[in-house]
Amino acid sequence: MRAVDLIRKKRDSGTHSREEIDFLISGYTRGDIPDYQMAAWLMATWLRGLSHAETAALTEAMLHSGEVLDLGSFPGKKVDKHSTGGVGDNASLILAPIVAAGGLTVPMISGRGLGHTGGTLDKLESIPGFNVNLSLDRFRSVLRECGMGLIGQTAEIAPADKKIYALRDATGTVENIGLICASIMSKKLAEGIDVLVLDVKTGSGAFMKSEQDSTRLAEIMVDTGQRMNKKVMALVTDMDQPLGRFAGHSAEIIECIGVLNGKGPADLRELSCELSAWMFYLGERTKSVDEGRELAFEMVASGKAREKFRQGIALQGGDPLVIDEPERLPSAQSSVNVVAGRSGFINTIECEQLGIALAVLGGGRETKESTIDHGVALEFHKRIGDRIERGATLVTIHYNDDARLAQAKSMIAASYHIAPEEPRFKPQLIRCTVGWQD
Amino acid sequence: MRAVDLIRKKRDSGTHSREEIDFLISGYTRGDIPDYQMAAWLMATWLRGLSHAETAALTEAMLHSGEVLDLGSFPGKKVDKHSTGGVGDNASLILAPIVAAGGLTVPMISGRGLGHTGGTLDKLESIPGFNVNLSLDRFRSVLRECGMGLIGQTAEIAPADKKIYALRDATGTVENIGLICASIMSKKLAEGIDVLVLDVKTGSGAFMKSEQDSTRLAEIMVDTGQRMNKKVMALVTDMDQPLGRFAGHSAEIIECIGVLNGKGPADLRELSCELSAWMFYLGERTKSVDEGRELAFEMVASGKAREKFRQGIALQGGDPLVIDEPERLPSAQSSVNVVAGRSGFINTIECEQLGIALAVLGGGRETKESTIDHGVALEFHKRIGDRIERGATLVTIHYNDDARLAQAKSMIAASYHIAPEEPRFKPQLIRCTVGWQD
Repeated sequence: MRAVDLIRKKRDSGTHSREEIDFLISGYTRGDIPDYQMAAWLMATWLRGLSHAETAALTEAMLHSGEVLDLGSFPGKKVDKHSTGGVGDNASLILAPIVAAGGLTVPMISGRGLGHTGGTLDKLESIPGFNVNLSLDRFRSVLRECGMGLIGQTAEIAPADKKIYALRDATGTVENIGLICASIMSKKLAEGIDVLVLDVKTGSGAFMKSEQDSTRLAEIMVDTGQRMNKKVMALVTDMDQPLGRFAGHSAEIIECIGVLNGKGPADLRELSCELSAWMFYLGERTKSVDEGRELAFEMVASGKAREKFRQGIALQGGDPLVIDEPERLPSAQSSVNVVAGRSGFINTIECEQLGIALAVLGGGRETKESTIDHGVALEFHKRIGDRIERGATLVTIHYNDDARLAQAKSMIAASYHIAPEEPRFKPQLIRCTVGWQD
Repeated sequence: MRAVDLIRKKRDSGTHSREEIDFLISGYTRGDIPDYQMAAWLMATWLRGLSHAETAALTEAMLHSGEVLDLGSFPGKKVDKHSTGGVGDNASLILAPIVAAGGLTVPMISGRGLGHTGGTLDKLESIPGFNVNLSLDRFRSVLRECGMGLIGQTAEIAPADKKIYALRDATGTVENIGLICASIMSKKLAEGIDVLVLDVKTGSGAFMKSEQDSTRLAEIMVDTGQRMNKKVMALVTDMDQPLGRFAGHSAEIIECIGVLNGKGPADLRELSCELSAWMFYLGERTKSVDEGRELAFEMVASGKAREKFRQGIALQGGDPLVIDEPERLPSAQSSVNVVAGRSGFINTIECEQLGIALAVLGGGRETKESTIDHGVALEFHKRIGDRIERGATLVTIHYNDDARLAQAKSMIAASYHIAPEEPRFKPQLIRCTVGWQD
């Protein structure tokens, strides 16, 4: 088998066998196949696409390029959740303690933010002392002690994905559902989980802007997981506007703590509980999703989830006092309001632009090398459909460095479209489920 | 400007500006843009195509990546010919001495064979002592002395093409007319020529199998040359069957000498004279193509072209006695016939397979590292439309090594399709002219 023949095959719309995909991925991981051949194959694949079977084979080859955690000795089901990324989405940090408090094991390997999206690891690092870089051994012992662990991709986990992802980023081959699916699923399945609940975002702040593309991505991820004998389902959820009231690292940790205290914004509460409910149900902790919802509410109401979060923070070296004293988190020194230029109703929001504005202020990564100002935040006062008067506040910017403040302000102002009439449709938070019925 | 944005632009069917193409080619030649980004761009380009303007800009950027010969101090027009490659095509070695004998300057930078095609440089190297690796200084002095020079691409000529061609070969991005055009034209225009006559092959032994594709390639090459203020025209010519009676290195040199002696096969004679005629006409040596034809015949009939070839061989270190004593060339020790399995008429020939069979016998390059047995040859006894009886000879194989003889024999036998009826159409040698009217 020669790499050039496989490149030509995909270029000419051919379908690869499992052996061909194994040859490509194992050869590339070993360094026998050079970057330039993989780059040509990725572009051919971007343009010609991958079938469901090819995507599953690619996922499996990438998964087996590294270590797969064996959590067989842990009691009960191992469950996790993955979000395709959005603005202000910190549901992972709420549902992990809920589900662990409810008795399941949550071995969560997460990513960092890039571009307009926030990353779970970055948010956790706003907690003083919190260490996301545990060894797999230490990760196992944290999991055994408290039922949840929150770390980043180690060198042992899916090294093929690490190498291919960096190449995709440099070669314009990121946005392809087969490649996205294989990248996500190879990392997630390396956690040794039985159940995966996916939160596939859709809308102006998601990577997939249309509900159709989001649903296709959800379907291929569910199909890939099921081919590998995992229980996988997806919720397709709204990202036409930010989730919760804040985007920013410390601010989102505070928002999480709010939800775990039974408060917090309604949309974030609903989404976290819905995802938790599915994890309880597929993880066989409850007999139905409804029972799962009740259990999730109970974990919050009893304070058990909050205490689980406190325990998890402490076990990973973080300052557990932040739960009661959020002022211990890094904060912003100044704030300024972005106001509406006209009266009317919020019609649409260019949500991706809000995420980019946050990065422009230092509260996100513009390149992989950027450092993050954890204190910076955007506070959202209006949602789609809300009435606003000219001069009233749309967004409060909490910032430390005013170097690019003017740019961020004008980006934010331009992101809100205000119309004279109330919009006929307001985005529904949960659009559909894929792969499993309630 | 960032390479990744240009890759994405081409991926999404965008059209590059001249500045964008300059950025890519100069960055890649300098090593600022890595192989993997160029590979992704090449695949996007292979699948999305290049406009005529993009192709011309690419050609020009590749041309100016290296040295362009300045032959301004030479008297008269500098003219050259290029063939897109076929089986048994040695017209270059006939027309170069004809045109130089007729008073024009022919600075010919040629290539080597690869796959099923023969290469001018390889054929010349079957002449004992012949050196195709002259420095550009030595090339100039040979040109000044005899009006023709026959060398390979030096490191100074279009280095971007050299680097890109190697990458295309490894990434399945060879067969694209824009990329082919830029590769050919950047090298040819680096010769400092005024006139270029192209022989674009079409048919089963050409890279472009259909007349439509060949004509499109001819058009884009002519257009590119004309945009750069050169007189460029193309003949689209037959490669549905081998040209002349032989394919093989020594054997084709002998065939050339035959034509220069006023003998040789009719098709090779006709094609060489037709191409020479166009070179004389566009090089302003004659007032019409007809006069060009007459001048070409005269150069052969008078023996002037043969003596020019002898002079050229001597000046490049080769043994000029081969002109009179062809037995001085390397030869094959054994021969065997491939015979017809049935009686009938030769209907079609899979000409590319004949070229590959020659390579299998050692008379061509299967990979760039292969060495060539210059003595090996195929001798063709039948042309399309000829009547043949079962058991009569189709092809005589002249060989030295019988390691893969059986494979070559069966490839050759399978290449000839014999039908009971005479074929209604026989391939015309010259199909059309592109870019210039007679």
